[in-house]
Amino acid sequence: MTDPHAPALRHGYFGPQGTFTQMALASWLTADDATLAAARPFGTVALALDAVRAGEVDRVMVPIENSVEGGVSATLDALNSDDPLVIQGEVLVPITFVLAAPRGTDRAAIRGVGSHSHAWPQVRGWMAANLPSASYVPTLSTAAAAEALAGLGEKRPPYEAAVCAPMAAEVFGLEVLADDIGDNRSAVTRFVVVSRPGTVPPPSGADKTTVVIYQHDDHPGGLLELLEQFAARGINMTRLESRPTGQAMGSYCFSIDFEGHVADERVGETLMGLRRVCADVRFLGSYRRADGRPVEATRTTTDEAYADARAWLQSLRD
Amino acid sequence: MTDPHAPALRHGYFGPQGTFTQMALASWLTADDATLAAARPFGTVALALDAVRAGEVDRVMVPIENSVEGGVSATLDALNSDDPLVIQGEVLVPITFVLAAPRGTDRAAIRGVGSHSHAWPQVRGWMAANLPSASYVPTLSTAAAAEALAGLGEKRPPYEAAVCAPMAAEVFGLEVLADDIGDNRSAVTRFVVVSRPGTVPPPSGADKTTVVIYQHDDHPGGLLELLEQFAARGINMTRLESRPTGQAMGSYCFSIDFEGHVADERVGETLMGLRRVCADVRFLGSYRRADGRPVEATRTTTDEAYADARAWLQSLRD
Amino acid sequence: MTDPHAPALRHGYFGPQGTFTQMALASWLTADDATLAAARPFGTVALALDAVRAGEVDRVMVPIENSVEGGVSATLDALNSDDPLVIQGEVLVPITFVLAAPRGTDRAAIRGVGSHSHAWPQVRGWMAANLPSASYVPTLSTAAAAEALAGLGEKRPPYEAAVCAPMAAEVFGLEVLADDIGDNRSAVTRFVVVSRPGTVPPPSGADKTTVVIYQHDDHPGGLLELLEQFAARGINMTRLESRPTGQAMGSYCFSIDFEGHVADERVGETLMGLRRVCADVRFLGSYRRADGRPVEATRTTTDEAYADARAWLQSLRD
Amino acid sequence: MTDPHAPALRHGYFGPQGTFTQMALASWLTADDATLAAARPFGTVALALDAVRAGEVDRVMVPIENSVEGGVSATLDALNSDDPLVIQGEVLVPITFVLAAPRGTDRAAIRGVGSHSHAWPQVRGWMAANLPSASYVPTLSTAAAAEALAGLGEKRPPYEAAVCAPMAAEVFGLEVLADDIGDNRSAVTRFVVVSRPGTVPPPSGADKTTVVIYQHDDHPGGLLELLEQFAARGINMTRLESRPTGQAMGSYCFSIDFEGHVADERVGETLMGLRRVCADVRFLGSYRRADGRPVEATRTTTDEAYADARAWLQSLRD
Repeated sequence: MTDPHAPALRHGYFGPQGTFTQMALASWLTADDATLAAARPFGTVALALDAVRAGEVDRVMVPIENSVEGGVSATLDALNSDDPLVIQGEVLVPITFVLAAPRGTDRAAIRGVGSHSHAWPQVRGWMAANLPSASYVPTLSTAAAAEALAGLGEKRPPYEAAVCAPMAAEVFGLEVLADDIGDNRSAVTRFVVVSRPGTVPPPSGADKTTVVIYQHDDHPGGLLELLEQFAARGINMTRLESRPTGQAMGSYCFSIDFEGHVADERVGETLMGLRRVCADVRFLGSYRRADGRPVEATRTTTDEAYADARAWLQSLRD
Repeated sequence: MTDPHAPALRHGYFGPQGTFTQMALASWLTADDATLAAARPFGTVALALDAVRAGEVDRVMVPIENSVEGGVSATLDALNSDDPLVIQGEVLVPITFVLAAPRGTDRAAIRGVGSHSHAWPQVRGWMAANLPSASYVPTLSTAAAAEALAGLGEKRPPYEAAVCAPMAAEVFGLEVLADDIGDNRSAVTRFVVVSRPGTVPPPSGADKTTVVIYQHDDHPGGLLELLEQFAARGINMTRLESRPTGQAMGSYCFSIDFEGHVADERVGETLMGLRRVCADVRFLGSYRRADGRPVEATRTTTDEAYADARAWLQSLRD
Repeated sequence: MTDPHAPALRHGYFGPQGTFTQMALASWLTADDATLAAARPFGTVALALDAVRAGEVDRVMVPIENSVEGGVSATLDALNSDDPLVIQGEVLVPITFVLAAPRGTDRAAIRGVGSHSHAWPQVRGWMAANLPSASYVPTLSTAAAAEALAGLGEKRPPYEAAVCAPMAAEVFGLEVLADDIGDNRSAVTRFVVVSRPGTVPPPSGADKTTVVIYQHDDHPGGLLELLEQFAARGINMTRLESRPTGQAMGSYCFSIDFEGHVADERVGETLMGLRRVCADVRFLGSYRRADGRPVEATRTTTDEAYADARAWLQSLRD
Repeated sequence: MTDPHAPALRHGYFGPQGTFTQMALASWLTADDATLAAARPFGTVALALDAVRAGEVDRVMVPIENSVEGGVSATLDALNSDDPLVIQGEVLVPITFVLAAPRGTDRAAIRGVGSHSHAWPQVRGWMAANLPSASYVPTLSTAAAAEALAGLGEKRPPYEAAVCAPMAAEVFGLEVLADDIGDNRSAVTRFVVVSRPGTVPPPSGADKTTVVIYQHDDHPGGLLELLEQFAARGINMTRLESRPTGQAMGSYCFSIDFEGHVADERVGETLMGLRRVCADVRFLGSYRRADGRPVEATRTTTDEAYADARAWLQSLRD
């Protein structure tokens, strides 16, 4: 059995310090302050995942899905290219934004606001109401927007304030000009812990599995056929996203989360079905749900139902 | 490996002599005249099947499906009740009817015509054109109609001519008044050889499997779900008939033939799926198709595709 | 609006007197004794339906489905050939069998028992227990078996007792030797009233529709596609039977009952879908359910939902 | 009939000058140089769409889908919020990137490179091989990255070179240091012309329709049911993307392109079906495909097939 919190593992995250991703890692490591302190920040999701592939760190925390902005394309695509990686677990973090600036900044003086392109749409309403004339300046992360304002960089950034996590304002010594400015107070981001393939976390009864599926060709009804592989085994999908394969306009693969663990009979049979009917299937891990909600298998889809059916089939074949 | 023509086996058939069923048995036993001569006729399909169950004979030939009249309910129901039986093989026999009567019978004197209720609708057109005033008298089989005319019975039957197989006219010494009187010249009946469960004939590459399926309850879309078990594995059905369960009006089970052999991976998985989602599944055998047409599995449904998928799944689980 | 009980209509039924079918007609006509008395019996279902086609009678009652024996092939096939006919209504009749014989008959003297081939399997258990040595003699109907014993025919029939409805014993003056001998005490037969096409009974909120469907060709998954036409509109099937088309072994059409009335929006759209994707669709009528159970349309399948959707579509197109 | 190229219409685009979007607009307006010259650039997609909603311009060109980077979330979400908008047409533009800098810039001096976050992943391979130590600086658009280098802004940007369209280098007087640096030489971006609702372009025989669909609740198999609405009418989807509704993690709507025009019978019935079974359907327009490829309707899905089916249904109802 694997221990997802084993302290000897070297961790990384999509940084710098003060990102929501670092908060997710803190949550994942619970009270293991030493490991958290030793965790390495990476400037982009791709760099973080490459560091795992290269063996520089054992695990990295990256964002994968936001309840307002949707799937994080950079993560989905980076997980799905190059050497295989697998998800070891997930963390949900409520998202709270603040408007932060160097101490003494006057709100009236703010002409530009820096933030990540995923964050900006989430505060658009507040900005329109409170800083309607401020222009948006994209940055690599919400924390990077704050960091640049802290005067640590060589150049002054082309904006006067940042939209970032409360933690980033604190880390970089900024003043919070406005608190909790997100338009959607229930915004949540889902983060995943990624490692090289190896041991899969054991079934917990409340698991998810993530795969990427490539169709053989783009024939009508192709997606319907794929979904029937799930339906015929009573498997419930919790996320489906199309991502371009890059081959041609209109050529897509599907990134899918579904309930259950690769060790479950019904999940195994579904994966076998996908493997047979698809051009390719990339397995991205089975792991415990962050909300711990048990998967409800109907009486027809339990491991017991499969064992009974297998024994019956064996009796017919003998 | 089993030998379906093993001469030591005791055979029976739905008789008397002269039925199409006896012709089917002759075809099945090819040139094994001794076994054919020793085969026992049974007056009804139910009696024939009971004799197999009781061990009085090893195999019986019974009709199961006619291209004009459809499924033979008596056979479908008798196969599906009491102790299990399995189908070992099938035979297709072209159906040709004659009008037969004791030598010297004048057509003008025919007021009643005896035949089996499955045969009568198949000659209705000829009768309307040639003997419009003759009334129909049902009999237990087409051969029984001929036999009674032969004067072997104690009583004279309430008809003057019989609609039966050419063989029956010959066996019972009747004169053929009209030849090939079936309205549909391409009529064919399918017969099956039934035994107690035991060895299943080995896969031949051109096999069929027969099952009877009971749904858990009669919910909307229930049949659709069952059919998806076949569709998700690329299995082609060749016959689907509903039969009442006898529980209540509208309560049906389904008798289904489909392509493939219980030893095939895709058939095994389909059977397991049916076993899980149905209230009951009765396996009635895997056997070679009479027409010898090979089953075409697509690249996604071959045993090789399953072996590859299973190996891949195992690699994920390890 | 049509009145299904209009007294001026000439009625017929699958006879002779004393059949369960006559009982069904009595139930349909309620207290209209004059019309019942004037109703004409026909010796076979085919003759009864032909008499409607020829205009000799306006409506005939025929059996279509038995809870023990299944669909009545003769009726299904005769409805589905020649000139169109439609179903105007249905009646459910509990089936109770008696063993009847001429007064004074000793049970020990019974060597043969006459009855219809649909009735015999329903008393097989009682016969095996009480008259194990009696042989079965098929007759055209249960009432015909009784009629022949009454000595009205020229010849004595080749049996001593009949299995028939209590009404037949009474009509033909026979003695009931044993009462209620059916193996399944809850056996029910469903009868339908058939007319030439013309007015359809108005929607009652508790209606059924009957169709026969021919597929374009016998491709894998063909049936699944047909059923999806129902599923996509939330329509519940209550009966599905395959019947051979007579073209070739394995060539079937499907006789289907489903909930709803041709005037319902969702039924109309389903019928249009079937018409488009099938080689042929034969409409056999919309009529009130015998049990009067209202059809439950979900909020997405009511006429109101269709009207809303149509208005919305119109707004898009304008 | 509407004229999509009517010169009197006021146009806008996601700018500034030099973006691929401006190139798309030039392609759409063909030789109408005056209208192109008068077209207004908008700094973000949301601003461009809001300008249409407010009536400041009649039509705007915005990017919606890239063959490498996938759907443009900003566009999908902005189309799907606030007042309704519809798509009038689409344009496909091959994407070619250059590395541009102020004249005389030495490649060795490049430490930072500015570009839009959708462009950067498309040149990642070239950058890793040729400028491995350069850091990425996000900008609002590829053209904005070039514009800032042109010295038009007050501040010098925090990078020395831009990844942009050849047109942007030309517009802003930059030197092209490297040509055609995209990793995928066949990259294409799809742009759409958006207006307020009003007239729909007439059917051309080569049309697409775009909708956004909200499920009633997130039940298992829900997506399968939606897709069956398309399958039952033989409709082929060309794009399916999930977008969060913002209500909660895991709550998604689906943005779908499919073949056919709202005026087609089969499309109308599909839209009605979606309207009935979904919580909400947002119609985003029917318009001619950029590639002009005719939609192939099978014989069962043509307007003629629908007209025949409707006439038949009417005959049943009368």
